[in-house]
Order: sequence, then C-alpha cells, then structure tokens
Amino acid sequence: MKKIILCDIGNTTADIYENGVCQKMILSEFKPELLAGDVWYVSVNHALSERLQSLPNWHNIVTLIDWDKYYLTMGIDRIMVCEAIDDGVIVDAGSAITVDVMRDGVYQGGFISLGLRAAQEAYARLSPALALSFNFEVDLTIMAKNTPDAITVGFLAPLIQSIKSYGNPIYVTGGDAHLLSSFLEEVIVDETLIFKGMKKLIDKGSKC
Amino acid sequence: MKKIILCDIGNTTADIYENGVCQKMILSEFKPELLAGDVWYVSVNHALSERLQSLPNWHNIVTLIDWDKYYLTMGIDRIMVCEAIDDGVIVDAGSAITVDVMRDGVYQGGFISLGLRAAQEAYARLSPALALSFNFEVDLTIMAKNTPDAITVGFLAPLIQSIKSYGNPIYVTGGDAHLLSSFLEEVIVDETLIFKGMKKLIDKGSKC
Repeated sequence: MKKIILCDIGNTTADIYENGVCQKMILSEFKPELLAGDVWYVSVNHALSERLQSLPNWHNIVTLIDWDKYYLTMGIDRIMVCEAIDDGVIVDAGSAITVDVMRDGVYQGGFISLGLRAAQEAYARLSPALALSFNFEVDLTIMAKNTPDAITVGFLAPLIQSIKSYGNPIYVTGGDAHLLSSFLEEVIVDETLIFKGMKKLIDKGSKC
Repeated sequence: MKKIILCDIGNTTADIYENGVCQKMILSEFKPELLAGDVWYVSVNHALSERLQSLPNWHNIVTLIDWDKYYLTMGIDRIMVCEAIDDGVIVDAGSAITVDVMRDGVYQGGFISLGLRAAQEAYARLSPALALSFNFEVDLTIMAKNTPDAITVGFLAPLIQSIKSYGNPIYVTGGDAHLLSSFLEEVIVDETLIFKGMKKLIDKGSKC
C-alpha cells in the first residue's frame, strides 16, 4: 500500500499524521517541500495553501468533499471530524467549540459555540469583576453562589445540556477535549478524529 | 409621603426614575447636586459614588442590602432585580446576561452569560468567517445548516434551554429584554425591575 501522510494546517502550526503518530510543527519552521510521499492536507491557512498548489505530491482534501452533504461556508476541519463518524454527536473543542450530529452517515446540522479561552476572555472584557478563570471542578447541576462558579455554570451548563440533548454516542476531539469531556458521561475522547475523517474520505476514493 | 428619586448609575449613563418615569442621562452632563429631594442610588461607578458621599440627600442602596441572602461579589444591580421578585426566574439582558432564581423570597443562585453583543464580538474575534450578526429570526429547535444560524443557535439555544429549565414565571429586563424574550413563551418583560427592587428594599425600612 502506498504511503500516505496526512496534514492539518492551522494558522500557527501544522499537525503531521503518519503511521499512527501525530507531530505538531510550528509553521515558521515547516518545510512542506521536504516531505516525501503523497500528502493529503486540510488547511485554514490560505497563504500556505497557495504555496502547496505548486507541489505535485500535496493534495487538498477539499477536492474529495461531497458538498451536497454539508453547507458551503462550513469549516473544512468540521467537515472532516463529521466524516469520521457515521452515527453520533461530534464535539470539536478548539478555539471555537463545534457541535455536529451525524445519523446514518447523513449530516443533521450543528452549532458553533465559543471556545473555553474565547469565552473566558469575553467575560474578562465585560468587567474586571468577571476576569476570572473558569472553575472546572464546579458541579453544573447546582446553582452558583459565587462569581467564578456563576460564569463557569453560565457558559458550560447550557452548552453541556445542549450537547447531551442530541443523544449518544458523543465523540470529543480538539485541544480542550479532556477538559470538556469531564462534564459528559459515556464520552469517547479521540484526538485523531480529523485524521480518521480524512483517511475515510481518501479510502472512499478520489472524485478528482 | 416624602418624594423619593431612584437612580441607577452605570459607567456612561445614569437612569433617573421619578413618579413612574425613567430618564436616561449621559454622565458627563449629569449634575447630581441639582437634584432636590431624597435620592437612593445603585452605582457601578466608583469615582461618582465617592463624589456622591458628600451629598447628604444621596443614599447608596448598598447600605440596605441583607448580605446574608446573597454573596459578597454579586453585582449590586443583580441583587436589585432579585429583590423585585419573590418567586421566579429573573433575566437581566445587558452587557452580560444574568439569570437568577428566587423562591419564596430566598435567593437560590444563578449564572452569568455573555450579553448578545459581547457574544457576537467574541465570535468575530475567533475568525472573520464568524464575524456575523446573530439571526434573531432563527428557529432554535432546528439544527443549523449555515454559519449565521450555527452561531446564533450555538449561543442562544443552550442559554434559552437553561433559562426555561428553572421553571416559571420568567421576568426579563435590561436593554436586550425584547430580543431575548422573543425566544421565551409566557415571559414578563419589565424594564423597571431594578427600580422595583430598590423601591421594595427602601419600603422594607432602612437598616442604617
């Protein structure tokens, strides 16, 4: 079988996934020309995407997407984590938290919440009195009677309640997957969901 | 009966409530020395609060609060809207959205969410793709399949669901009261809740 490298390119780092191992690289030190073998990538970095077009072994996964299943302005990384799962709720807890539902391989829709850091920063911007860290030990079922709990419950309780309302199974990925999953029971944390989605899409066969 | 004026002082404006009429004044043009009669005020503006201490007819409502009922870092305006209601859920939709529950005159706790503008600004900061206005026509029960709906549902659906989970009656006040209440059934919009709370507290009698 031909060797395939997967690559998830953000605005500051690139994650390279090869033989089940993920390696994070800082973009300023990243030399895509040096990678040998076929590379499939997702990218939110338009400048780098343009450079990669001139490299014959680099393939943009966007060419494989069946856009009838999703909507045109949907984030490419969000589509990839959905492609990984045929049936379930997929939570990607990064700078934003995306929540999407797949049933029998069909995209049902979803929503976008602020990420944990973005939410805390937004509270801090409102008032110095709210410039506090979330209390991740808080019991979300109890009504808050102090400020750190009041903002934590205010942000997390509604979000967790919404995620749970879509049923099981729940898959969580992204940088804050572990923090968020501690509030969910029976949850599958999988930090390689994006690569699983890319792999499935490549295996389905190229449309190009 | 002695004439009483109520005043709610923010960082840029002061709301004066007298004989059932509310008047908003810009702080830079506000001359508290000119108000005749007893004035009770809440203030989040420390500089102005200090100035007011030298005026014998201006009384800070903070002196009347029974702090055993609340918690020490709780916002003074939040306590006032709670004081207005003996039994119900109180939503103050301003720069932050506070949600508090009172049962038989006893404070049960609550939470603090971002205000509508703060939430939209926080999405915009995450990505230019999310720098969109909320769609206040959206049906929160349907899963979103476009970006404006995905951020609106992402912010509002969990919040509305949480508010409803505390039961009835629901009182909504603050600048975004009308926008928010359109997503709630059987809701009482009351823009003078803060003054009703102040009035009730004054009527109960001074502790000082």
